[in-house]
Amino acid sequence: MSLKKIHPSALKENDGIEQPETISSTSVQQIQKLRRTQPSADDLIASITKGDKTALSRAITLIESTNPEHIEKANKVIQGCLPYANKSVRIGITGVPGVGKSTFIEAFGKYLTSIGKKVAVLAVDPSSSISHGSILGDKTRMEELVKDENAYIRPSASGESLGGVARKTRESIVLCEACGFDTILIETVGVGQSETAVHSMVDFFLLLNLAGAGDELQGIKRGIMEMADLVVINKADGDNVTKAKLAKTEYNRALHLFPMKNSGWNPKVTTCSAIEKLGIDNVWETIQEYFSMTKANGYFDTKRANQNQYWLLETINDQLKNHFYNNPQIENLLELNKKAVQNNEISPFAAAQELLKRYFK
Amino acid sequence: MSLKKIHPSALKENDGIEQPETISSTSVQQIQKLRRTQPSADDLIASITKGDKTALSRAITLIESTNPEHIEKANKVIQGCLPYANKSVRIGITGVPGVGKSTFIEAFGKYLTSIGKKVAVLAVDPSSSISHGSILGDKTRMEELVKDENAYIRPSASGESLGGVARKTRESIVLCEACGFDTILIETVGVGQSETAVHSMVDFFLLLNLAGAGDELQGIKRGIMEMADLVVINKADGDNVTKAKLAKTEYNRALHLFPMKNSGWNPKVTTCSAIEKLGIDNVWETIQEYFSMTKANGYFDTKRANQNQYWLLETINDQLKNHFYNNPQIENLLELNKKAVQNNEISPFAAAQELLKRYFK
Repeated sequence: MSLKKIHPSALKENDGIEQPETISSTSVQQIQKLRRTQPSADDLIASITKGDKTALSRAITLIESTNPEHIEKANKVIQGCLPYANKSVRIGITGVPGVGKSTFIEAFGKYLTSIGKKVAVLAVDPSSSISHGSILGDKTRMEELVKDENAYIRPSASGESLGGVARKTRESIVLCEACGFDTILIETVGVGQSETAVHSMVDFFLLLNLAGAGDELQGIKRGIMEMADLVVINKADGDNVTKAKLAKTEYNRALHLFPMKNSGWNPKVTTCSAIEKLGIDNVWETIQEYFSMTKANGYFDTKRANQNQYWLLETINDQLKNHFYNNPQIENLLELNKKAVQNNEISPFAAAQELLKRYFK
Repeated sequence: MSLKKIHPSALKENDGIEQPETISSTSVQQIQKLRRTQPSADDLIASITKGDKTALSRAITLIESTNPEHIEKANKVIQGCLPYANKSVRIGITGVPGVGKSTFIEAFGKYLTSIGKKVAVLAVDPSSSISHGSILGDKTRMEELVKDENAYIRPSASGESLGGVARKTRESIVLCEACGFDTILIETVGVGQSETAVHSMVDFFLLLNLAGAGDELQGIKRGIMEMADLVVINKADGDNVTKAKLAKTEYNRALHLFPMKNSGWNPKVTTCSAIEKLGIDNVWETIQEYFSMTKANGYFDTKRANQNQYWLLETINDQLKNHFYNNPQIENLLELNKKAVQNNEISPFAAAQELLKRYFK
């Protein structure tokens, strides 16, 4: 049923005047052209290695795709970029929500570009598959960095599993490096598991903390504390300065309880105020100290080689599982066996064997 | 060369009289007969469900074997025993070396048999593949329990992986239950990972501790503390009694910092002296409290059903990996790819894909 009356009415409204275009038609044409033409893997490699951020974004989108063609193309791009990669430092940054991570990354990133660095910010956030990239909201909080010619910010890939998200982030690192970014910051949300994944892809692990957080909070972070190469106590400003200094002493004591690190590095504690941009240079100095030490004693290269091997095996194990659990025949049989196992009709091991026999047939 | 001289000498020794047999020839014959005859799966099931400990031991040996025929037979036995299993309580017992685990298990086990229980003691100790079953040494320390008609002690299975050892232990539980053991104690060494494996196969998790252990030690056990349903402070005897009481208060406070358990159970702390057999009845009372509560609120059954499902998936994942990594074609290719990945000649993901392509072909 049409809502428009055919006969004229007292309430008839005249058509308004035509609105002027708010978007330049040239831009629209350019975007449409860009969308139509799918650059080849070689085109992407050439553009990325020239420092083209648009090409970088497109390639990362390919990495994040689940389309088999895209995956194959993404692999070609990564392989082509690999010889240009690895010439960077990779820094993991974590901390519970509210600690001021975005403000810190904004201040730290701006400091780095001010001393001539090219900075890429990536994120590992498995929860983003629900919130559709929580870092996107944060982007507005990194207002200055986002506009910086020498910075590149990419929200977290979404994915069903932490493994998937982590894999995509790690592949994105390679592309960012090939694109000329020499300092890669990888942000993680403070939920426990993603920190371990990030730890296995960075050279340096920075834990952002607050002074005077309760005991319970500290407990949650114990495992993460153990991974930290540097604890930065943020919000050391105003009335908080004394509390932050006290916290620094406490953290220093706590860190000494952990066993010696393989790197030979003694984890440090420092204070900063990201909002007032105080102590940021100090953070960078400490990180540089770490890198000169671990590059000299060989740990830097050993760790990267071990990480590569870890990701090789992780990827294999992940895909073996995917291949099994996504097999339609298996899916049905698995459901039946799960029920039988729960009701103690079959032992979990016998059920597993039955499923595997079917799978390998 | 014979050491016996042919010609008589001044040093000639006469043959001694024949020694009496120290082993009864009937026993030898029985053992030899037993070794010759391989009882069928059905024989084993029949004997086990009648409470025959020798049959139980033989079946567990089958479980621990890597011979495919033995594995198949073991599966048959487990399947046949399954309807008779699950009528027990399964208690995990952990604690760092030196805490008095063997003495505690001896005292606790003897207490349980004295009140009419049938007790099986199993162990998960992945390190035993190196030390060839460290619990064997402990057996001598469980002198009384080992001789107890109503107790059964089995050292840890050896195996290359924790997963393998844990799987074997879990299957052994089923057989012990079918054999009439109603209280299964599963011992674990305090190394971190095996506790998680044990936690996923028991109904109740008991952490044995000492008063006045240093801060560092407490740190290591934090994750394990979180799993504990009951913390037992051992060696509360002599000069130690006051210290143990203090520790009890401290542990109680620490336990309250952890989030509420799904079971609805508030973890308890108690003291005991295993060597003086004091407080053992108290431990058992607390455990019984736990069981009445979780059986009433349904948690007991839910947890077992979830554990079954966990082991189904764990076994599948383990075997998928075994099948891949033990493939001779893959083994060679994997070595090559590991090197290439370490030298940054290929990305870990591309290498994984290449290996998987070959595998699935």
